[in-house]
Amino acid sequence: MSASANSAQPLTEGRLGENGFGCVETLPAINDGHGGVIVEMKNAMSPDVFVTLLRASLLQWKHQGKWGVWIKVPIELVNLVETAVKEGFWFHHAEPSYLMLVHWIPETGNTIPPNASHRVNVGAVVLNDNKEVLVVQEKRGRFHGLGLWKIPTGVVDAGEDLFNAAIREVKEETGIDTEFLEVLAFRQTHKEFFGKSDLFFLCMLRPLSFDIKKQDLEIEAAQWMPFEEYAAQPFNQKHEPFKYINELCLAKLESNYAGFSARPVTSYFKEQLSFLYLNSHDLHKSP
Amino acid sequence: MSASANSAQPLTEGRLGENGFGCVETLPAINDGHGGVIVEMKNAMSPDVFVTLLRASLLQWKHQGKWGVWIKVPIELVNLVETAVKEGFWFHHAEPSYLMLVHWIPETGNTIPPNASHRVNVGAVVLNDNKEVLVVQEKRGRFHGLGLWKIPTGVVDAGEDLFNAAIREVKEETGIDTEFLEVLAFRQTHKEFFGKSDLFFLCMLRPLSFDIKKQDLEIEAAQWMPFEEYAAQPFNQKHEPFKYINELCLAKLESNYAGFSARPVTSYFKEQLSFLYLNSHDLHKSP
Repeated sequence: MSASANSAQPLTEGRLGENGFGCVETLPAINDGHGGVIVEMKNAMSPDVFVTLLRASLLQWKHQGKWGVWIKVPIELVNLVETAVKEGFWFHHAEPSYLMLVHWIPETGNTIPPNASHRVNVGAVVLNDNKEVLVVQEKRGRFHGLGLWKIPTGVVDAGEDLFNAAIREVKEETGIDTEFLEVLAFRQTHKEFFGKSDLFFLCMLRPLSFDIKKQDLEIEAAQWMPFEEYAAQPFNQKHEPFKYINELCLAKLESNYAGFSARPVTSYFKEQLSFLYLNSHDLHKSP
Repeated sequence: MSASANSAQPLTEGRLGENGFGCVETLPAINDGHGGVIVEMKNAMSPDVFVTLLRASLLQWKHQGKWGVWIKVPIELVNLVETAVKEGFWFHHAEPSYLMLVHWIPETGNTIPPNASHRVNVGAVVLNDNKEVLVVQEKRGRFHGLGLWKIPTGVVDAGEDLFNAAIREVKEETGIDTEFLEVLAFRQTHKEFFGKSDLFFLCMLRPLSFDIKKQDLEIEAAQWMPFEEYAAQPFNQKHEPFKYINELCLAKLESNYAGFSARPVTSYFKEQLSFLYLNSHDLHKSP
């Protein structure tokens, strides 16, 4: 048998018990820090071998008073998924390379945390000193064919800071280097994509270069457009979210609007830097 | 054979071709609006039947110039997952009741959109007229055992507006009714949960009731605590994100801080109301 896991705290070892009795092999698991265990399947095995190991493991975890049981199945071991479901596991989440299954041992209602619920997008307002805004026309997507000149937008990846995503999208679509200034506003929408919700952050950036080199795959055209011309587009006049972009740009041009800028903070639980976005203009006291 | 789908635009019909030739049955599919198709598996079938249908379908979709192919497999039909993977599908996302598989037909790089990447949490600052803040001690979780009095916090569900989530969490944990005022700040952190990122929105709410009825399951204790006492807790003095909560509360108490308030907007693509969060204080012109 070849079950193995990244077992920092192996719960089972060997084939012989302390008293010399025979014992049943179980799946290597690590504690999840919330009263449950995580099994990371790594090596190929038949469903028959897997079901034997899984049943023995479940008995042991129940005896140990464990709550949630997570099994991460890489796509190469997809032959084990049906077995896990038959033994009472359900789907928690999936990524291209793996499926996470979960099971709750106690009789009481489970406290399994939900899967990621939101996609995050950014839009980038890049204004130069001539009061021109950096705009693009897209080759596809829902704005294609409307003749609309729009600000660069894109998806924030898991693990990516949203100010970096805004800088990256502008660079990818137009070749322009920028510096992040602040989040002007954000919008939450629902049922955008397979029932998930979206958060869209409208960011203000300062251009650091000026020669446009548009990306060919997704971008039909890119240019610096006088702000008045951008704002006067019928589409932007007609639709509320776009009207707000006009208003916010105007408020920034008139220098009377404070958005949220980014401040680095260190987490308590992990010595990891993250970013807090707040109205620095109004928060006089610096830490 | 019993493959069926919610086929608004069925791509295949019947067993006989137009010219009376026999033809191979395929999986019912609907167009996804992006050049691909979606198959929603509904009825039980054997993997043998499924693989025959799937191969015939893939040939047809390739011939039709389709790009992405999505197959939604409910957990009851988990016996079909291995077959789909063997035919070139990979995991896209999963929820407790289903797994979404995807395949890209063209030779070119795929433009399959990524899965949801962020969990969203809210924290609620509820200050009353006596400059007391509503605080709780949790029965479990990472703040348990620290003796920390903290503001109510919780997860925003997919489909839930974050201001409603803040109101709901306060009500659930303390029984206090509140009205949402504004987002004071937000923080993005990474690798919080299976590699996903988190967004935490710090919200300010106004209490509409004052008698605390704490929830028993998760909350050890709840009270109105003088702000100075809350802020003076050693934990809150020591850790940056908590220090910022102190500072932001103080700035609000001194009435010199503008966060982002919520304004309803109507989307262009769907006649659906959503909320835009912006600095209303600074945006003088109302739409």
